[in-house]
Amino acid sequence: MEILCIGNELLIGKTLNTNAQWMARRSTTLGIMVKRITVVGDDVNEIADAVNEALKRKTGFVVTTGGLGPTFDDKTLEGIAKSLNRKLKVNKKALAMVKEKYEALVKAGKMENVELTQYRVKMATFPEGTEPLPNPVGTAPGVIMTIEEASLIALPGVPSEMEAIFEESVVPLLKKAAGKVAFFETSIYADNIMESSLAPLIDKTMHDSPYVYIKSHPKGEEEKPHIELHFSTTAKDSRIAKRWLEKAIIQLSELIEKNGGKIRVQKIKAKV
Amino acid sequence: MEILCIGNELLIGKTLNTNAQWMARRSTTLGIMVKRITVVGDDVNEIADAVNEALKRKTGFVVTTGGLGPTFDDKTLEGIAKSLNRKLKVNKKALAMVKEKYEALVKAGKMENVELTQYRVKMATFPEGTEPLPNPVGTAPGVIMTIEEASLIALPGVPSEMEAIFEESVVPLLKKAAGKVAFFETSIYADNIMESSLAPLIDKTMHDSPYVYIKSHPKGEEEKPHIELHFSTTAKDSRIAKRWLEKAIIQLSELIEKNGGKIRVQKIKAKV
Repeated sequence: MEILCIGNELLIGKTLNTNAQWMARRSTTLGIMVKRITVVGDDVNEIADAVNEALKRKTGFVVTTGGLGPTFDDKTLEGIAKSLNRKLKVNKKALAMVKEKYEALVKAGKMENVELTQYRVKMATFPEGTEPLPNPVGTAPGVIMTIEEASLIALPGVPSEMEAIFEESVVPLLKKAAGKVAFFETSIYADNIMESSLAPLIDKTMHDSPYVYIKSHPKGEEEKPHIELHFSTTAKDSRIAKRWLEKAIIQLSELIEKNGGKIRVQKIKAKV
Repeated sequence: MEILCIGNELLIGKTLNTNAQWMARRSTTLGIMVKRITVVGDDVNEIADAVNEALKRKTGFVVTTGGLGPTFDDKTLEGIAKSLNRKLKVNKKALAMVKEKYEALVKAGKMENVELTQYRVKMATFPEGTEPLPNPVGTAPGVIMTIEEASLIALPGVPSEMEAIFEESVVPLLKKAAGKVAFFETSIYADNIMESSLAPLIDKTMHDSPYVYIKSHPKGEEEKPHIELHFSTTAKDSRIAKRWLEKAIIQLSELIEKNGGKIRVQKIKAKV
């Protein structure tokens, strides 16, 4: 899977990219590996290039977030149309979804009319050969299409809308693709030992536990070492996963203590 | 400028990418535009591909963060060497920097010896034709090289170290490249008007103020609209920048109020 985040606010550092983290976390826990995250601005050519490049890398799913709204700078669908050399057309199902949202607002007395201005119709103007995904909490529908063997999915940038469509329409696809695989992880914390002294101990442990990935995250400074050691693995059977992680944790803990370090252990968490 | 963040922890959603936001913010305020942010994992080929692609897009600066430490999964310099088809060699200046750090720890009584293990020498093993950047707060030096007309700069992933090297060694280069240009921005907040109703008003205002970029960020829901309108511009003269922004703010505010919306205004901030 690749994630493509679209929005100038991310490139000027105005907005922290919590959407990418949320989507990466959710996909990983479902057993789907995220291979790359790309951020580009509200520019048709930049979006088209990024979509093309992601599709070429053939990671199964390309999910975009941002740029589906009614304003001129919402350019994601124009970018996708350009990348696929497809025309933009009003999608009837999507238009019915948008219309329904506005009619509900009128019924609730929150709006006077539902005039479908060009700006509102824009939210239902999709590249040809695509389908809308219902937006349970906002107006702009998501978009899905199949490109060769990949699913290209476009979601809004407002976090609550992105998350709602993802949960409702994307998670079932990811679960199907992942099968029974799940992601397991845990961390231990090492004090009193420098990262450069830990390095050979991690090498040894990973050599002996080839299915476990161990990554060190220095939290203090090299001179006051406090290091998180993150263990993760992907497996079909939770008992096997736990056994793998436990073996690696015990081995590395013993090596660290032999070298004068101190460790703190957390419980292994299955993330499903 | 392009930012390339390296680390599996970002792809599994374990870590929120605050480094990208910090660097994007800092560069933008100096008048340097960030065109793309890419995140890849701790994989030599992925890093090499991403570096190559960024250099090909010729944005002047490519700055990487992450993967400079002593452990096996710190693969940034190997990836850069591969992308440039250069050999990795111990850099004498960098080795002196690393050695000095450990000697200081011994002097301070925090370490018994300074044996330069392969893991410690790794932090000074650079692609040929590169220079180290001093790390004021940690052990691993940054790396800089010139590739045609671009600067390729590699910084650590630990935020305090990345920020310290960036301030000391990268900011002067960015300032020189930007000249006297600075970035100005402000936001107003519109209530009681939907984003789809705002869209034509923003179009009109941006048409009349071609140097001002206006982006709407919905904060509420379409039915309870609360929308941030972010105005930004880049200019050499702060008085001109403020005049541009003020003209656009006044015009859009009037249009919004004519259409039944309410607005709140903030002061214009120069970000230098």
